Amino acid sequence: MPIIFGVDPGIATTGYGIIDEKEGKISSLAHGCISTKPGDQSRRLAILHQELQELLYTFQPSCIAVEQLYFSKNTTTALIVSEARGVILLTAALLSIPVFEYTPKQVKLAVTGSGSADKYQMQNMVARILQLDSVPKPDDAADGLAIALCHIQMHRGKMNND
Amino acid sequence: MPIIFGVDPGIATTGYGIIDEKEGKISSLAHGCISTKPGDQSRRLAILHQELQELLYTFQPSCIAVEQLYFSKNTTTALIVSEARGVILLTAALLSIPVFEYTPKQVKLAVTGSGSADKYQMQNMVARILQLDSVPKPDDAADGLAIALCHIQMHRGKMNND
Repeated sequence: MPIIFGVDPGIATTGYGIIDEKEGKISSLAHGCISTKPGDQSRRLAILHQELQELLYTFQPSCIAVEQLYFSKNTTTALIVSEARGVILLTAALLSIPVFEYTPKQVKLAVTGSGSADKYQMQNMVARILQLDSVPKPDDAADGLAIALCHIQMHRGKMNND
Repeated sequence: MPIIFGVDPGIATTGYGIIDEKEGKISSLAHGCISTKPGDQSRRLAILHQELQELLYTFQPSCIAVEQLYFSKNTTTALIVSEARGVILLTAALLSIPVFEYTPKQVKLAVTGSGSADKYQMQNMVARILQLDSVPKPDDAADGLAIALCHIQMHRGKMNND
């Protein structure tokens, strides 16, 4: 019964979603965000590291699934988010937790069946698959769950990497 | 007598240079590289973190000076180097060591007096300022020393940020 920890990296907000697969049934254990206030970047990264470490100790996932970053128009943001990604990968490595990385397109495809699904389609499918009463909030937490679901789909062999 | 730890971030090779300022005299304490072999990115970041942490314990610098990343043509490399930068900033924060960041242009200007100096001019000036018998090798280690020198110059008030 593997516990999967999905992460949507960010510096102001890192979304996470933790799911459990038991006898073929997938359920959500927790989801939420690690937030840091504007200020010294190294302090923000330390908060991210410490809060993530605490969650990993608590939930003992068998792996971490992280979204890969693609270049957007805002290249400065991409560099800063990459620093947060580096801290997430390090935090996993220090606890010997294997890391799997997925592109946004892979996540959309795995969760909705379409690589071009919009945010609302994604959130609705996440809620439906996990049998949640409502769409998970905030958006980053829903993304964290979607990445964890993507990992399970990929490892069930229902899809090939595109 | 502050000890300054200069870092030129990278994933295959992170250069560092450690300098000491005593009664106005600047000298090099050590310089070198932290190297990681190709493979799992989170493992490479863990090696970088652990080796950097060891150096920081050994030399107890009063601050870390890190080169800021600018977008090059190779954007994939920029993202991966940013992950290493994130780990460097985190490692400093976990030891409560303040971090200062400088652009490549600021480093060139501080060390050579010209923001457009080439690599050889930079390396020769680093060797001359630190009264080294030869140009420090490898290049990344020389860059680490240059960044540490830049920090000292900036804090002596000899220059303004450009």
